Amino acid sequence: MSKKMNGAQALMKTLVDAGVEVCFSNPGTSEMHFVAALDSEPKMRAVLALFEGVATGAADGYARMAGKPAATLLHLGCGLGNGLANLHNARKGKVPMINIVGDHATYHVKYDAQLQSDIETVARNVSPEFVRTSQSTDELCSDAANALTAAQTFPNKISTLILPADVSWGEGAKPATVPTIPAAPVADDAIIEEIAKAIKSGKKTAMLLGGRALREPSLIEAAKVAAKHGVKLFAETFPTRIERGAGLPPVERIAYLAELVGVQLADIKNLITVDAKPPVSFFAYPGKKSYLVPDGCNLFELASEEQDTSKSLNKLVNALDANDTKPALQEASRPGRPRGKLTAEKVCKAVGHFMPEDSIIVDEAITSGLMLNAMTAGAPRHDMITLTGGAIGQGLPSSIGAAIACPDRPVIALIGDGTAMYTNQALWTMAAENLNVTSIIFHNASYSVLNIELERVGAESIGEKAKSQLDLKGAHLNFAQLAQGMGVHGTRVTTADELNKALKYALNHKGPNLIEVMVPESLNGTKRKVLPWVLKSLPGLPLPLTRALKKKIAP
Amino acid sequence: MSKKMNGAQALMKTLVDAGVEVCFSNPGTSEMHFVAALDSEPKMRAVLALFEGVATGAADGYARMAGKPAATLLHLGCGLGNGLANLHNARKGKVPMINIVGDHATYHVKYDAQLQSDIETVARNVSPEFVRTSQSTDELCSDAANALTAAQTFPNKISTLILPADVSWGEGAKPATVPTIPAAPVADDAIIEEIAKAIKSGKKTAMLLGGRALREPSLIEAAKVAAKHGVKLFAETFPTRIERGAGLPPVERIAYLAELVGVQLADIKNLITVDAKPPVSFFAYPGKKSYLVPDGCNLFELASEEQDTSKSLNKLVNALDANDTKPALQEASRPGRPRGKLTAEKVCKAVGHFMPEDSIIVDEAITSGLMLNAMTAGAPRHDMITLTGGAIGQGLPSSIGAAIACPDRPVIALIGDGTAMYTNQALWTMAAENLNVTSIIFHNASYSVLNIELERVGAESIGEKAKSQLDLKGAHLNFAQLAQGMGVHGTRVTTADELNKALKYALNHKGPNLIEVMVPESLNGTKRKVLPWVLKSLPGLPLPLTRALKKKIAP
Repeated sequence: MSKKMNGAQALMKTLVDAGVEVCFSNPGTSEMHFVAALDSEPKMRAVLALFEGVATGAADGYARMAGKPAATLLHLGCGLGNGLANLHNARKGKVPMINIVGDHATYHVKYDAQLQSDIETVARNVSPEFVRTSQSTDELCSDAANALTAAQTFPNKISTLILPADVSWGEGAKPATVPTIPAAPVADDAIIEEIAKAIKSGKKTAMLLGGRALREPSLIEAAKVAAKHGVKLFAETFPTRIERGAGLPPVERIAYLAELVGVQLADIKNLITVDAKPPVSFFAYPGKKSYLVPDGCNLFELASEEQDTSKSLNKLVNALDANDTKPALQEASRPGRPRGKLTAEKVCKAVGHFMPEDSIIVDEAITSGLMLNAMTAGAPRHDMITLTGGAIGQGLPSSIGAAIACPDRPVIALIGDGTAMYTNQALWTMAAENLNVTSIIFHNASYSVLNIELERVGAESIGEKAKSQLDLKGAHLNFAQLAQGMGVHGTRVTTADELNKALKYALNHKGPNLIEVMVPESLNGTKRKVLPWVLKSLPGLPLPLTRALKKKIAP
Repeated sequence: MSKKMNGAQALMKTLVDAGVEVCFSNPGTSEMHFVAALDSEPKMRAVLALFEGVATGAADGYARMAGKPAATLLHLGCGLGNGLANLHNARKGKVPMINIVGDHATYHVKYDAQLQSDIETVARNVSPEFVRTSQSTDELCSDAANALTAAQTFPNKISTLILPADVSWGEGAKPATVPTIPAAPVADDAIIEEIAKAIKSGKKTAMLLGGRALREPSLIEAAKVAAKHGVKLFAETFPTRIERGAGLPPVERIAYLAELVGVQLADIKNLITVDAKPPVSFFAYPGKKSYLVPDGCNLFELASEEQDTSKSLNKLVNALDANDTKPALQEASRPGRPRGKLTAEKVCKAVGHFMPEDSIIVDEAITSGLMLNAMTAGAPRHDMITLTGGAIGQGLPSSIGAAIACPDRPVIALIGDGTAMYTNQALWTMAAENLNVTSIIFHNASYSVLNIELERVGAESIGEKAKSQLDLKGAHLNFAQLAQGMGVHGTRVTTADELNKALKYALNHKGPNLIEVMVPESLNGTKRKVLPWVLKSLPGLPLPLTRALKKKIAP
């Protein structure tokens, strides 16, 4: 490798040598040398996005499924700003990523040209642990190596490497090697002993699994403990990636609504977290608790986000002598094919009915997806990706990344209509890359969740203007048309039969497909209470529990 | 006003009393009390955007035309992040604005819930002068008053007021009054004397007008100086708002390409700035100068961005005894109606031919708009709004704001296709509010400007992958379809005749309209040099000068 390289070329080689093989990009002038360097590295795939939030969301989805970081290529502070919401989701999901953010040449900064802004400050919101403006072509590749080390050390992080144009075009750069990331530590004996004792105490105990603990190796270990000692298994509310379906241990997700978490955790005396935080309310509500662990419940941390979850769990299994215990596994069962009038619930049913084995389900359906977990619980084995940071507009971009990481697996994205609009440009990239993504858009013409929230925060007197801010009916949205305008096959369906047909077609044809499902605006009940409606079904809860809860809480 | 108010209601009243009458919003749960308070204030108009970049860009366009700030309503750090690029444009354009960014309740922050992030840090990128997290319901309205004072003091700024949910829902709040903003200072006698002397020295002198100096009162004063002493008038490259057309003093805009600025300023010995910075290159290029003021040219600042431009200019007029000098005014002249095959130039010609008096032209056409200035120079009096911060995706949102500020004036937005995609959701708000905006999208299926820039930065060896990152042909875009998918009347035109017809129709019918003009991808010449092509026409330069420049620079 005695070839003379400029900064961009050496950076590209550093990335590729470290296993970074995809760059999701939305470049501008300051990134032109990096763009030109793409052709010097056959191993680097460049995927163009027409909006930065698509690039960052795609890098997130990619890393969740590939288990390694992708790069993004963004244009100065504004490009990074546009990508911020999905970087936030990735950060909350502990997803590894490296942002390459182009900047003005170092000597140009002082002139405060139009695009000059404080990039580092923006970056700190989402990559507080690693933000560096590379100061010279010499240092660039070691900066990149440090960025990748930081990103891949547990908990995985987003690293932001700011690349001034002159550092990029400077000559004489040398690629650097990313050192092997040390293995994550395992829970120490003392905590294992303490937890084993708590479990054996006979008090009602639950284990809350998050992060990497929702992947098969950890799930199996946790399920052995559950089977031997009657420990209840919970998953965090919004998993980065959960492996589930027939043959895997079923886990009940902690509900979004704090009102319900109280019920889920009511009798728990010991709560053991594994790469998860004790549950807190998503938002605060007047007069309601933010911290949802019941008073008097003992908390134990089996594995922190820095630690190895499956090895720590295995150590617990050994301590409990549960190695030979047979874990309870989900039985195979699919819902029937839906019929008649379309509802959000029937859409979830259709997904459960038709989804192929090894599907990747991207869930950003918000209120429309309340039944998704129940309807897919016994479907063939699959992965589910969710909205880890609450910044909507993650689902479509994330699907791009998942499809690129796993080209042989079908991706099914369930997206709310309000949500889909934030990053609709993702459809273009799906078409440009001919990705195997079926996007199902729930058209209810409303930010439905906000109707619930308006009630929950106690803002009771709702006038016309307030209502108009939660309502997408001001102008007619047509997602099938939007899809077609970006080169994606789009269909609008209004009955279950039409949906069944469209879904079968989409799953049997390679390339992107969008199905716009016209569902009733069930939640827009500003006169009646909407919370009871929500209680009809709850994400992640098995149906019998849902029914019990409904009796217990509904006014 | 003894009515009991919560924080949100009192804040709403504080805003309205200070003249803030429009709130461009994309709310979430933490903003629900503010949303509910909308109905308590009949004077506050709420305009929903389906993406935050639309809300911030609309607030920018509104303030440029209304001459006073609008509010935005954004959802925590991620909502602010999504709005950042257009806030950047507003900041660079010295546009007043107040962001209301909802946050978790103060006591909820410590739980680091999903949407928790460091909002203040993000905000500092675009409102470094005023970021405040209001700490109590009692302080909220005085915080808001301070925010509005900061925003409206020259140079106008963006203030960001972070509104924790409990501060918003807390009771017992009292509205506050925004004190009168003190008049901006006027240039002092010494500098006026110095500048008058320089002008009278007989050396070639130019005046560079920016910011508020491009509005009629200042233009007239500057043009008197120009007429009496042969001072050349320049406008900054990207004006926030320039009043122009028949009957107003014509001003030559400083070119985007540094190569040309050198020619524009070549013989200038004295450069007087008025609310403008000495020209610098938009980006840095290897081996080329960033600072574009010629060596040996004397710099004078007549009015800084803090000062009153028209009064300072008037003082200079008096010092030069030019009060009775007749300023040179632009003669009325429109280009003929274009015919035959469609080109970007002919689109600009059609706009010049058809645009009604008092139009508001929003120019984000990038390379396709090179002829726009020349073609509209002698059109009836109008305003032009441009991309002040270089963060593309400003034009469509900005048009919303302009149309709301000036409901009786037609808005004509010229937008590049790549550019339009960043904030395409703006079309929905145009439809929902039935705004009188004609959006012309130049469809050349390319980030054309980057083909120029790739050459200018000297990244010469361009491979297929690099080219693919500048190219929008990966999937078929259809803007007419996108418009229709968001409730806007959309047409695609491929000949000049079709364009003429569509433009006449749009200008004669109220409500939004989108015309997708299919223009050749003239710049995608990766084999041939593209810079000479650009020289065929230059923004803001009169045609004869363009021709002279072309001879002088083209290889």
